[in-house]
Amino acid sequence: MKAEQIAEEFPVVALDSNALDAVRLLATHRLPGLLVTDSAGTPVTILPASQVVKLVVPPYVQEDPSLAGVLSESMADRIADKLGGKSVQEVLPKPPPDMATVKSDDTIVEVAAIMARNRSPLVCVMGGEGLVGVITAARLLGVALGSPH
Amino acid sequence: MKAEQIAEEFPVVALDSNALDAVRLLATHRLPGLLVTDSAGTPVTILPASQVVKLVVPPYVQEDPSLAGVLSESMADRIADKLGGKSVQEVLPKPPPDMATVKSDDTIVEVAAIMARNRSPLVCVMGGEGLVGVITAARLLGVALGSPH
Repeated sequence: MKAEQIAEEFPVVALDSNALDAVRLLATHRLPGLLVTDSAGTPVTILPASQVVKLVVPPYVQEDPSLAGVLSESMADRIADKLGGKSVQEVLPKPPPDMATVKSDDTIVEVAAIMARNRSPLVCVMGGEGLVGVITAARLLGVALGSPH
Repeated sequence: MKAEQIAEEFPVVALDSNALDAVRLLATHRLPGLLVTDSAGTPVTILPASQVVKLVVPPYVQEDPSLAGVLSESMADRIADKLGGKSVQEVLPKPPPDMATVKSDDTIVEVAAIMARNRSPLVCVMGGEGLVGVITAARLLGVALGSPH
């Protein structure tokens, strides 16, 4: 079985989308991460959900989470401050993280290897005409267990 | 708002559960990862979904995914070979990965910091009597955006 046979549709966010809308999309659909595309629809990066959370945590608190106690701001305020009125492009890490990508004729074992190595909950499947779809870790395991739906 | 206020129930797998059943649980419910507990119900480790995938990828293919092409086994055969008839404990990495854990009275910013630093799609919330629940990245972002349900 090849990657293109198990790829699924997945909501994407464009670089020029509103960053708060992108986070809302992830939260509402409980997505494992965000797939970000350029204006032509070509994937640019994948942000696993934990790394979307990271966008709103100050670097010194990432280093030492116990310092979160000294922040007077709530998480709601931080999200509004850091992401409000900004585009996805403006808030992405620079450079954006490497993206786990496979070709449409890659085998499922190859997809699994790339997913494991990138610690990515999803990979993009790319064909001759661009993005074919996405394979999540849960989807891949489901197919391997013989329950493709 | 405190961690215990947004913690949710989450399916757990015991160390002595069947490994294939654990993977099936993840695939069926499209969980972001597996929360593994000991026989007393105390959390032992969290395996993000991508690291569950890793359990069935041979180390030399993880190093160089292009070598997947030389494997004659399908992903279905690999899952059956590596996990069939084994317990979760038998297939976990040794030692099991550090687990992202927060206390029930930690703030949401602290939860976010621990999630980001551990690159974990979920964290365990621990209270005086053990596991209170779990907070996923999607849940945390939803709460911060003001859409708690």
